[in-house]
Amino acid sequence: MSTFRSPVRVAIVGASGYSGEELVRLLLNHPHADLVAVTSRQNAGQTVAQIFPKFASHPKSRALRFSEPDAAALARQADVVFLALPHGVAAEYAIPLLQAGAVVIDLSADFRLKSAAVYREFYAHDHPAPELLAQSVYGLPEVYRAQIRGARLIASPGCYPTSILLPTLPLLKAGIIRPTGIIADSMSGVSGAGRKAEVDYLFCECNESVRAYGVPKHRHLSEIEEQLAIAAGVPVTIQFTPHLIPVNRGIHTTLYLAPTENFSTAAEVAALGQRITDCYAAAYAQEPFVRVLEGKALPDTKNVVGTNVVEIAWRLDPRTGRLIVLSAEDNILKGASGQAVQSLNVLAGFPEIAGLL
Amino acid sequence: MSTFRSPVRVAIVGASGYSGEELVRLLLNHPHADLVAVTSRQNAGQTVAQIFPKFASHPKSRALRFSEPDAAALARQADVVFLALPHGVAAEYAIPLLQAGAVVIDLSADFRLKSAAVYREFYAHDHPAPELLAQSVYGLPEVYRAQIRGARLIASPGCYPTSILLPTLPLLKAGIIRPTGIIADSMSGVSGAGRKAEVDYLFCECNESVRAYGVPKHRHLSEIEEQLAIAAGVPVTIQFTPHLIPVNRGIHTTLYLAPTENFSTAAEVAALGQRITDCYAAAYAQEPFVRVLEGKALPDTKNVVGTNVVEIAWRLDPRTGRLIVLSAEDNILKGASGQAVQSLNVLAGFPEIAGLL
Amino acid sequence: MSTFRSPVRVAIVGASGYSGEELVRLLLNHPHADLVAVTSRQNAGQTVAQIFPKFASHPKSRALRFSEPDAAALARQADVVFLALPHGVAAEYAIPLLQAGAVVIDLSADFRLKSAAVYREFYAHDHPAPELLAQSVYGLPEVYRAQIRGARLIASPGCYPTSILLPTLPLLKAGIIRPTGIIADSMSGVSGAGRKAEVDYLFCECNESVRAYGVPKHRHLSEIEEQLAIAAGVPVTIQFTPHLIPVNRGIHTTLYLAPTENFSTAAEVAALGQRITDCYAAAYAQEPFVRVLEGKALPDTKNVVGTNVVEIAWRLDPRTGRLIVLSAEDNILKGASGQAVQSLNVLAGFPEIAGLL
Amino acid sequence: MSTFRSPVRVAIVGASGYSGEELVRLLLNHPHADLVAVTSRQNAGQTVAQIFPKFASHPKSRALRFSEPDAAALARQADVVFLALPHGVAAEYAIPLLQAGAVVIDLSADFRLKSAAVYREFYAHDHPAPELLAQSVYGLPEVYRAQIRGARLIASPGCYPTSILLPTLPLLKAGIIRPTGIIADSMSGVSGAGRKAEVDYLFCECNESVRAYGVPKHRHLSEIEEQLAIAAGVPVTIQFTPHLIPVNRGIHTTLYLAPTENFSTAAEVAALGQRITDCYAAAYAQEPFVRVLEGKALPDTKNVVGTNVVEIAWRLDPRTGRLIVLSAEDNILKGASGQAVQSLNVLAGFPEIAGLL
Repeated sequence: MSTFRSPVRVAIVGASGYSGEELVRLLLNHPHADLVAVTSRQNAGQTVAQIFPKFASHPKSRALRFSEPDAAALARQADVVFLALPHGVAAEYAIPLLQAGAVVIDLSADFRLKSAAVYREFYAHDHPAPELLAQSVYGLPEVYRAQIRGARLIASPGCYPTSILLPTLPLLKAGIIRPTGIIADSMSGVSGAGRKAEVDYLFCECNESVRAYGVPKHRHLSEIEEQLAIAAGVPVTIQFTPHLIPVNRGIHTTLYLAPTENFSTAAEVAALGQRITDCYAAAYAQEPFVRVLEGKALPDTKNVVGTNVVEIAWRLDPRTGRLIVLSAEDNILKGASGQAVQSLNVLAGFPEIAGLL
Repeated sequence: MSTFRSPVRVAIVGASGYSGEELVRLLLNHPHADLVAVTSRQNAGQTVAQIFPKFASHPKSRALRFSEPDAAALARQADVVFLALPHGVAAEYAIPLLQAGAVVIDLSADFRLKSAAVYREFYAHDHPAPELLAQSVYGLPEVYRAQIRGARLIASPGCYPTSILLPTLPLLKAGIIRPTGIIADSMSGVSGAGRKAEVDYLFCECNESVRAYGVPKHRHLSEIEEQLAIAAGVPVTIQFTPHLIPVNRGIHTTLYLAPTENFSTAAEVAALGQRITDCYAAAYAQEPFVRVLEGKALPDTKNVVGTNVVEIAWRLDPRTGRLIVLSAEDNILKGASGQAVQSLNVLAGFPEIAGLL
Repeated sequence: MSTFRSPVRVAIVGASGYSGEELVRLLLNHPHADLVAVTSRQNAGQTVAQIFPKFASHPKSRALRFSEPDAAALARQADVVFLALPHGVAAEYAIPLLQAGAVVIDLSADFRLKSAAVYREFYAHDHPAPELLAQSVYGLPEVYRAQIRGARLIASPGCYPTSILLPTLPLLKAGIIRPTGIIADSMSGVSGAGRKAEVDYLFCECNESVRAYGVPKHRHLSEIEEQLAIAAGVPVTIQFTPHLIPVNRGIHTTLYLAPTENFSTAAEVAALGQRITDCYAAAYAQEPFVRVLEGKALPDTKNVVGTNVVEIAWRLDPRTGRLIVLSAEDNILKGASGQAVQSLNVLAGFPEIAGLL
Repeated sequence: MSTFRSPVRVAIVGASGYSGEELVRLLLNHPHADLVAVTSRQNAGQTVAQIFPKFASHPKSRALRFSEPDAAALARQADVVFLALPHGVAAEYAIPLLQAGAVVIDLSADFRLKSAAVYREFYAHDHPAPELLAQSVYGLPEVYRAQIRGARLIASPGCYPTSILLPTLPLLKAGIIRPTGIIADSMSGVSGAGRKAEVDYLFCECNESVRAYGVPKHRHLSEIEEQLAIAAGVPVTIQFTPHLIPVNRGIHTTLYLAPTENFSTAAEVAALGQRITDCYAAAYAQEPFVRVLEGKALPDTKNVVGTNVVEIAWRLDPRTGRLIVLSAEDNILKGASGQAVQSLNVLAGFPEIAGLL
C-alpha cells in the first residue's frame, strides 16, 4: 500500500518548541527518512546546530538551515510534512500542504476531533477547515494502524489522551469496564507547557511545586471522550484532572474504572484478573511500544522517558469494587513526536520501530 | 483547663529523622517551650548543632546533646514528650512515659486508631498497648480541639490523612457529599519516606521520576476511613492512591466526591456552590491554618511548604456531577511536626499559632 | 545614635520579584517594623495576599494593597524605603526619596561603587546620580556596621559579592593571603536571575543543566574588586566565574587563595592553620550570621537556605601551596533581602537578629 | 590489526550500578556487539528486563539473565569483558580473565595509574596486581587510539579526569599553557556517587543542595596528574575541587590556566586566541565526540547528557592573564560507559561511533 520510497523526504514546520526539537532529533537519525527542511520564523537562517547545540555532532545539523515556512515550497521538497504548531495555526498550513500533494502529520489538536462543534466548544474558535475533519485519521497506531496506512492527514494524539486511551480502550471494547464514571488523574512534566517565556513555567515557579490546572474541563477531554465513545458505542463523559510536577518529561496517569462484573471473593478477583490479563495480552502482546507490567511492578516515568513506550499496570480493589489502571509515558515521545514518527513508519511501510529504539 | 506553666518543658524521642529534625527546629524557636532533651541512639553524645548544622546559629543547639532514650529520665525532665519513632516502637515508649506522668504527643500511627483489630489488619502485628487506644485523642485540632485540651496521649495524624480529612470532614458532616465512592489521589514529596538509606529513595531514583505505590491498600487508609466514618455516622470505604514525586516536601491531594444533591443548571450549580462555600466558612473561617482559596486560585505546594497551612480549593463539575476538592500542605509541618506543635499549643493553652508563624 | 522609633515605618518599592517578595515576608513578620506600603506597577490595586498566596495567613496581607510607586507619598508614609528594582531604575527613585527625607536601603547595584567610571565600565551607562556615590554606605554589616548606623543611603551588597567578601576580607586585612591571583568560582540557584519571563530560565532549560555565564567579566566583579582593594590597600583584580545550577536558592563559592607565607611541613601547616582559625574567630566569633565550620564539615547550601547565615570552611593544601575557602549562603536572604533587613536593624538600633531568626 | 569478528561477544561484570546499567543499554543496542553475559551477585537469576524495566522492550532483555561472576566461564563466553566494579575488586577479576584470554575493559581506577606507589597513596591499599600496570592502556581514545588498538587491558578513565584532560592536554602539549598552577573546579551529578544506599545521596539530602567534597585531595587527582605529566614532560601538581549538584547526570568543569605568553593588547589577545583555536582544531576537528564551541556558546550539561560528547569552550581574560576553559560531559557516558564502548570500537576496528549515536 505504501507509495513512499526510502528514504522518505520529510519536513518539520515549527521546529523550535520541545516537540519540534524532538522531531528534529528523531528524523535526523531515522534510517528511512531524509530531513529536508525545518521551518521556524524566529530561527530562520540559522543552522540546526546553532539552535540545538546538542545535535551539533550530527553532520546534517551544520548544513540544514531553518527557513521561513512556505507551504508550496515544502510540498515540493518533502513527501511528508510534520506540523509542530499551535492549534488553529496548524490548520492554516495543513490546507495548502494537502492541496499541494504532501502528506501531513499534524501534532496539534486541529484535526483530532470529528466534530467541528466540539472543537468550537473546547477551543473557543471556529474550526478553520471543518471539511478536513472527516478525512483525518487519529494517529494512534495501536488502534488505527490500518487507517493510518492510507492516510493523507494524520492527527497525532495529545499527550494526556495517549496515556489515558491506551490503557482504557481495550477494556472498554471488551466490555470489562463500564463507560460511566471514569476518572483519569494525570501528572505531567513541565515540557508539556511548551517552550514559552511565561512566568508560570520558570524554574523557581515549578521546582518544589505541585499544582492542578485546567480543573474541571481541560481541552484534551474532547478527544479523549470522542475516542472512548467510539470504543464504547455510546457517549462517554469522564473526569480528568491534570497536574504539573517538577520533571522535564513524563506523564503518569492513574485511572479509576468500574468493572462491569462484581468481584469480592478471591475466586471472582482471580477470574476478573484473568480476563483483564487476557484482554491486554490480546491488545498489546505484539505491540512494540506498549508494556504491560507484571508482578509487583508499577509504572514509573523514569523507565519510559527517552523511549516511545507506554507502561501499564493494573490492580483490582475488592474493598471498593474498582479497577485501578496506571500508565506512564514520555509526553514528548509517545505523547507527541515519537508517536508521530511511529505513524510515519506505519504510513510509509517501514518497520514500526524504525528510528524509535 | 491547662495545667502547664510557660515555658513548658518538652523532649523529643527519635529526633534524627525529618519529622524529628523539624520538631527540633520548631521547639528551639517556640516562645513558650523549653526543649530539654532530644534522644537518638545513633546520635547520642553529639550536640544538636553537630547533627543539624542548619540550627547551629541557635545558642541552645550547641549546648543540647542527644541522649539515649530513657523513659524514666525523660518523664522527670519534661512535661510533654514528642515521639518521632516508627510505628510499633512508639508504643513501647509511650507506655512508661504515660505511667511516669508525662503527656505524650505521638507522631507515629500507633495510637491513631480506635480498633486494635484494624491496626493488626493494616500494620501486620498485634497492637502493643490496646488498652491505651480508648484514651488517645486524634490530634487534628480543627476537629478535636476540645478533646486535645485535656488529653494525656495525643496521636498526631498522618500526613496523607490530614490532607484528605480537612477538606472532606465538613462536607460529610453537613451532608453535602455522600460517604460512598470517595476517591483520594495524592502526591507526596520524598521526605515522606523518611531519612532511610534505601536505594528507592536515592536522588537518581526519585529525580525525573513519578510513580504510585501502596496500590490499592496503603496503611493510612485505616485512620482515614475511621475518621470519615465517625463524621458520616456510617462505615466508609474509600479509594486512596499515593504517588511519589520529586520534591523535598509537600503533599497535594485531589478528591473526587459525589454531592448528595443533583446539579446541572446554572442555578443548581450556584446554589450548591453557595452551600459548599458556607460549609467551609463555618468550619474554617476562624482557623489560622486552613486557607480556602477563592477565585481561580488552586492549591500549590510551594505556597504552603515551610508553613503549617493547608490550602483548599474546590470545583463543581456539572458534566460529571462530581465535586472536585484539592488540597496542599507541607507533609512535615501540617502533616506531622507542625500539627504536633499545634496540638501542644492547644493542650497547654498557648496561642494556637505560637511558634508556627 | 538611632533616631528611629519602634516600630519603624517601612516601604518596599518593586515588591514583585524574588527579593521584593522575601522583603515582604521578612518585614510582615519583623517585630520592630511596620510595613506601610508596597509598590509594583504590575500589581497595583491588588492585595499582598492575592499576589503572594503563601503570605495570606498573615492578617496584614489581606489589608495591604500594592500601589503605584510615588516617591513623595512614600517618603511621607515611611521612615525607611527599600528599593528592590533593577539597576539604573533604583537610582531614579533614590534621589527624590532622599530629598524628601527618607532613608533608603537599595538592593540594586546603583550605589555600591565609589567610582562612577567603574560603574559606566561595568553597567554600560552613565551613573544617574554620581554625587550620591560618596555618601552611600556599602551595607555589609560585618564590615561597615559603624557606618551603617548613621547612613541615609545604604547600598546592599550583591549576592555573589557577599559570598566572596565575607570569607576573604579578614584574611586580606590580616595579611594572611596575597591580594593577587584570587579566583572565585561560584554557583547560584535560579532565583538569582529574577522573576523574568525568559526562555533561558524556564524549568526545562535549567533543570538537569549546569552552565557558566558572564565569563570572564561579570558585573559583580566591580564591587568585589573595589571592596577587596579597600581591604588590601592596593588595587585588586580577581577571577570570578558564576555558574547556574538547578536549585531555587543558594550560592556556593569556592575560593582559591595564596597565603603569604610558605607551608609544606606539618608544623608550618599547623601554624598557618592556627593563624587562619584565629583570624576568622576574631572577625566572626561574635557575628550572629557568619558560621565558620569546624572538623570535617563543608558548607552546604541546604544548611543555610531559609536563613541569613553564611557558612565558611577552609582547607590548606600543602601539595599546591594554596588555601581553599568555601562558603554557602541563601542568595535571597544573606545575599539580598535578609542582609538589607540586617542593615535596617543596625541602622535603627534594633537587635541585629530581629526578624531574621 | 583487529582480531575480532563482528559481532564481538561481550560480557559485563557488575552490571547493577549506574555505569553497568548504561553499558547494558549501549551493548544491547550495539550493531557489532553481542551481549552474552551480565553478572551481579545480588541480581543473579533474574532477567535484565526484571532488573531494568526500561530495557524490557528489547527482546534480549527478557532472555538474558544475570549470573554469578565466574571468570573462567566469562572468558569462554566472551571476547571482551567489561568490569563495572569498585576499585580493588576489579583487579581481582581482571587477572584470571586476562589469563584465560579475554580482553578486559575496566571502568574502575585499578589500572589507570602506572605507579603502584601512587595507587597506594591515593587508594590506601596495596595494588592487587602491580605487574599489570605496565601493560594496561589508558582508555582515552582521543589520546591513546593507537595503543588501544592492540590492548588486552584497557583502563577506562574516570569521569572527572575525562572532563579535565581533554580540554587541557592539547594546550599543554603545544606549550600554550604552563604546567604549573592549574586549577580544575568541577560539578558532578549524583549518579557519580553510584547506586549505593547511603543517607548522603538520598533525594532530600541532595535536592536543593550544593556542596564540595574530597577537598583538597580527591582520588582522581592521581590519574589526572599522571596524564598531565606525560603530556607536559615534567611532573604536574594541580588543584582540583569536585562539587555535588542536584542533577542525575553531567559533569561541568571550569579550568583556570596560565598561558605561557603574555597578552594584554587586543592584538596579543587575537594572536593567542588564534593559537588556541588552531590547537583545538588540530586535536579535535576530526573527533566525533569532542565539540569545541564557537561564538558566545558555553558548555551546558543538558546539551551533552545522553550523548558521548564533551563540549569545550574557552575565554582569554586579559584582566587577569588567565585562560578559562570550560567543559561539559555526561559522567556516565563519555565519563564512563560510553567511553568504554568507544574503546571497544577502536579495539575491535568498528566505526568509532558505532552504538554511540
